[in-house]
Amino acid sequence: MTLKELVQQILTKKSYLCVGLDSDPKLIPSSFKSEKDPIFAFNKAVIDATADFAVAYKPNIAFYEAMGTAGWESLQKTIDYIPKDIFTISDAKRGDIGNTATKYAQTFFDPSFCGLDFDSVTVAPYMGKDSVDPFLQFENKWVILLALTSNPGSLDFQLIKDAEGKTFYQHVLTKSQEWGTVENLMYVVGATRAEFLQDVRKYAPDHFLLVPGVGAQGGSLEEVSKYGMNKHVGLLVNSSRGIIYAGNDTYNSARREAMKVQQEMESCLEKYNK
Amino acid sequence: MTLKELVQQILTKKSYLCVGLDSDPKLIPSSFKSEKDPIFAFNKAVIDATADFAVAYKPNIAFYEAMGTAGWESLQKTIDYIPKDIFTISDAKRGDIGNTATKYAQTFFDPSFCGLDFDSVTVAPYMGKDSVDPFLQFENKWVILLALTSNPGSLDFQLIKDAEGKTFYQHVLTKSQEWGTVENLMYVVGATRAEFLQDVRKYAPDHFLLVPGVGAQGGSLEEVSKYGMNKHVGLLVNSSRGIIYAGNDTYNSARREAMKVQQEMESCLEKYNK
Repeated sequence: MTLKELVQQILTKKSYLCVGLDSDPKLIPSSFKSEKDPIFAFNKAVIDATADFAVAYKPNIAFYEAMGTAGWESLQKTIDYIPKDIFTISDAKRGDIGNTATKYAQTFFDPSFCGLDFDSVTVAPYMGKDSVDPFLQFENKWVILLALTSNPGSLDFQLIKDAEGKTFYQHVLTKSQEWGTVENLMYVVGATRAEFLQDVRKYAPDHFLLVPGVGAQGGSLEEVSKYGMNKHVGLLVNSSRGIIYAGNDTYNSARREAMKVQQEMESCLEKYNK
Repeated sequence: MTLKELVQQILTKKSYLCVGLDSDPKLIPSSFKSEKDPIFAFNKAVIDATADFAVAYKPNIAFYEAMGTAGWESLQKTIDYIPKDIFTISDAKRGDIGNTATKYAQTFFDPSFCGLDFDSVTVAPYMGKDSVDPFLQFENKWVILLALTSNPGSLDFQLIKDAEGKTFYQHVLTKSQEWGTVENLMYVVGATRAEFLQDVRKYAPDHFLLVPGVGAQGGSLEEVSKYGMNKHVGLLVNSSRGIIYAGNDTYNSARREAMKVQQEMESCLEKYNK
């Protein structure tokens, strides 16, 4: 998907909601458990319910991988089922070098390998340029690079400062802009630290940000939008559990929650997208 | 596997060789291509040839993942085939938080999930403690944390210094020792920088190091052993392509190359393991 197509979709739907498909056999309602493929049946219900309000879906690959080959089959069916005009994110946090990174990129971007055809993959920056570059070689595909995450452990390394006071995550933001552009590189920025968004926008004013942590993890959509939005919106805000596990009646509860978030986003777009 | 068992195996075999199973359908000899599962048939030949000389096997997960469900089946058969007294490393470079990290740990450590039962997983440090901790909760299982890698991109971030001159990778070494012990935590340290091994040993004198990059990537085994070995050996040195793709006659060529490395290691053990 191109930047232009993504922005167009956001403006049409008046939403920058990403729905996280952290679909766990232990957490899905029991009504799905008699289905041949319970995880796909659950995802299908979520997608049917939310496709009017979501501009992106983000399967968390760990959840599928833990189910073995059955999980990969559920993932494949899910990706095939998502409407083609909706952005897809493989939340895989991959990060390895050269030919290994190429294999990971092929896995998620080139359907001639295992069938998957995601628009983007989350990638870890620790190994530097040659762990990111191979993903950037695919046309209209995106890297979403970890920059500043929202978990407690993000304090361990991401905020370490160099002698000039520049933090490690700021280094990630500036260095990586030598590798990718606003048309193929986004950043993961944790929403529980909306005060950091201003800082991120100093270093990456034009890139899209994927913001997890609104909802269950406690970030404020209003603050994220106020400080994170840029001239082409520039935000994808994720909610997983708050939508997909909102109730036992998955279709209705997911639809209700997604619509609620979309309405809040519509109001934020009016206020902050100028 | 316990530390004691690993060290005992090294001393018995007089080897600290890890064979990397970067098994690629495009690179395996054509003789395997008529097999029902060519990748497993190839791995089986490599394992049969090298099990006398290797103390660890390291499948590179990207290579299996890129083949879809067939790849996961080949991986499962490979892991089941490796003799139980040989250490196994899932080279997956996973790194995500909380419940997601737990899913990745279950994938590779708990056979009740997808069947895999690795001794260890390589993990990326960027997201900090809560991305590493879940892997450390499994008894006799290991985290092998990325510290200083051998690729060109390692220069992008790993050597950034804080105001006191401490590099980012040194922070990873010290901080992570608050989370794991010498009995469940190793580090990835790139062999093409043997001069850095002395530095790593200042910060992590007692931990095992997994050293990739000897062989095809140009590191010197002698130097790695001289500067990296500690009182309980403390080294696993990996070779992938140099052994598994040494010739078209996989069994004989892999055996010859593995034996050659083992002999060099035997001599290094005599010199440096005191």
